[in-house]
Amino acid sequence: MSSIAELEKKIKILESELERERSKNERGRQKIAHMSSEVVDTNPYSRLMALKRMGIVDNYERIRDFAVAVVGVGGVGSVAAEMLTRCGIGKLLLFDYDKVELANMNRLFYQPHQAGLSKVEAAERTLKEINPDVEFEIYNYNITTVDNFQHFMDRISKGGLKECTPVDLVLSCVDNFEARMAINTACNELGQKWIESGVSENAVSGHIQFIIPGETSCFACAPPLVVATHTDEKTLKREGVCAASLPTTMAIVAGFLVQNTLKYLLHFGNVAYYLGYNALEDFFPTMVMKPNPQCDDNYCRQQQAEFQKREAAKPKQVVEERKEEAVTHDDNDWGIELVSETTEEESRLAEGDTPHLTEGVKFAYTKPVQSAQNDSGVTVEKTDQSLEELMQQMKGL
Amino acid sequence: MSSIAELEKKIKILESELERERSKNERGRQKIAHMSSEVVDTNPYSRLMALKRMGIVDNYERIRDFAVAVVGVGGVGSVAAEMLTRCGIGKLLLFDYDKVELANMNRLFYQPHQAGLSKVEAAERTLKEINPDVEFEIYNYNITTVDNFQHFMDRISKGGLKECTPVDLVLSCVDNFEARMAINTACNELGQKWIESGVSENAVSGHIQFIIPGETSCFACAPPLVVATHTDEKTLKREGVCAASLPTTMAIVAGFLVQNTLKYLLHFGNVAYYLGYNALEDFFPTMVMKPNPQCDDNYCRQQQAEFQKREAAKPKQVVEERKEEAVTHDDNDWGIELVSETTEEESRLAEGDTPHLTEGVKFAYTKPVQSAQNDSGVTVEKTDQSLEELMQQMKGL
Repeated sequence: MSSIAELEKKIKILESELERERSKNERGRQKIAHMSSEVVDTNPYSRLMALKRMGIVDNYERIRDFAVAVVGVGGVGSVAAEMLTRCGIGKLLLFDYDKVELANMNRLFYQPHQAGLSKVEAAERTLKEINPDVEFEIYNYNITTVDNFQHFMDRISKGGLKECTPVDLVLSCVDNFEARMAINTACNELGQKWIESGVSENAVSGHIQFIIPGETSCFACAPPLVVATHTDEKTLKREGVCAASLPTTMAIVAGFLVQNTLKYLLHFGNVAYYLGYNALEDFFPTMVMKPNPQCDDNYCRQQQAEFQKREAAKPKQVVEERKEEAVTHDDNDWGIELVSETTEEESRLAEGDTPHLTEGVKFAYTKPVQSAQNDSGVTVEKTDQSLEELMQQMKGL
Repeated sequence: MSSIAELEKKIKILESELERERSKNERGRQKIAHMSSEVVDTNPYSRLMALKRMGIVDNYERIRDFAVAVVGVGGVGSVAAEMLTRCGIGKLLLFDYDKVELANMNRLFYQPHQAGLSKVEAAERTLKEINPDVEFEIYNYNITTVDNFQHFMDRISKGGLKECTPVDLVLSCVDNFEARMAINTACNELGQKWIESGVSENAVSGHIQFIIPGETSCFACAPPLVVATHTDEKTLKREGVCAASLPTTMAIVAGFLVQNTLKYLLHFGNVAYYLGYNALEDFFPTMVMKPNPQCDDNYCRQQQAEFQKREAAKPKQVVEERKEEAVTHDDNDWGIELVSETTEEESRLAEGDTPHLTEGVKFAYTKPVQSAQNDSGVTVEKTDQSLEELMQQMKGL
């Protein structure tokens, strides 16, 4: 039996221990109301605002006016969300239905102590500690089910920073075609611009692709074989076999994705339509893909018709003048230029082995001299075989 | 005055609160003795070992046999160290004398609650939580002072995984020329291979460069203007002005750096000699620079002579055969190939405006059609002006 004095002593010890543990968990920084350029060690925005003085960005603080949706917060999406958070984006909407596992530790962002938490919850906690100025909406669900898809559409079209405005951009960081098609369907219907990203199963290549409904090829315009043939992806995955991944390739693809996002939102540099990365050869293909007039997606064809109408309504002279320099869209308020990086000679040489693609789809890049290894491609354009030959091969599997 | 029952109740509450706070601070995972390929959610190495089944790497588990030194753990170095840690590298040696500040929060890795800690200490804590299998040596000092430089040389030459063996690679992630020259001096004397990296002050370009003493251009072979003219860097920095930086560019450069490290250590793909990144135009120059026979560094000239001797001692026939395919070094046990990515026509066109460089230095890339903005370059090769013109301009500042 303890005396009151002993018990009170024990309470004091416990209280001080509790305080110490709590202080360890006291993380993060205070909110900052105004983005300042002041060069002091305590200003988390000084090196970003310096982009103005360096002549790169006119109005960096505008970053706070934008809302971006990140669909899939795995190896690419979580790093992309962290980059945007550290850049001081206004709002992030995160979608994922997966949990953090130790098997994810070969990519940046998640840490072993988060194993078991839902990815969106773990991500929000870390990101809020890093930058409490960013607003978050998180959804721990699969966007491809009917109910969730409706809710997803709703948040994309109404989840912007101002009430009932759409988000400014959707970033696709998912790891399967079903989810990509869901994002594609939603964005075509809403006329929502988005950037698709992907990393190959062998971990050594990846890409980003900017999709503007009606203006550039959507995901259904030139679908991957597995989508074109209506094959169930799950049947392609074998038990006990997992895709390889590297933190390097995923961070580089996330870097390209967010760099393109910043260039688009803040109007600097040339926004890329397609940027690929082949790690084995350090090859970076760029290209432009026009939409397919026979696209399976009704909303894509509708967006194409509307885009054509807008183009036709423009004063002719301006269109002609621009044609002489480069193919530039007239409502191009963010400076994208459709300039091919290949010479005519290269294009001619490259045409010999272009795959048979859906009508209306055009290539604007050449293969490297030493052709890339045949990646288990997220992109279709690397094969020399016809769709028929590939389908034959697939059936043989 | 409280009763014993009340006090005991209070103790129980305090104890449970303490347990909860402590569990929050219980982070990380247990050590793993053997790298397994098993595909289970609890295996942090499954997606890396999958590189073997995918045919990319023959022997991924060899990663544990390597020690890498990272000099400078700021925006690029900390991310590079995290990537190597997640890849399961055997040992990391980290060098930095700086403290974490809130002003660093616009780059990946450090978090606000670490402000005030030394960068190497903060980095080691986080990295050990992420992967306790990695061995660490951290040094919180400036490598450029006389005493520290000797110690730095000692750790590079004796800090490998086996006792008194050199590290396998040095990664330079520093932000000033003085530190780069110190690493260069050490590596030339030791014949130590290293990869230099850099990001421009305007945050939108960067590069990596693989330096093999005697075989490729060292940092002193074609020094940046500020080094060539023996200008004190500090005189170039103005009060209250800071360089811009972006998490995107820095993560991409760190990704290139570690990807090249993995390709070199694990023998896959083509190791890059030089890979540049221009974010505004998505332009990625590659080139090869031969060492300068008139290099200011004695050890560089000595390493060149030894390399020439080794080359001359090789059977002639083999050398000639290889010359016909591509310029490949004979003791090339890790597959680097010196293949120009430019056509002869492009080279001829590009030659018109190459800068006047030190004798013995050669270019192997072309400029993009729309020339890049004039970055406050870490590299000299982007200017159209002669050394004399630039020195004139500098004096005018």
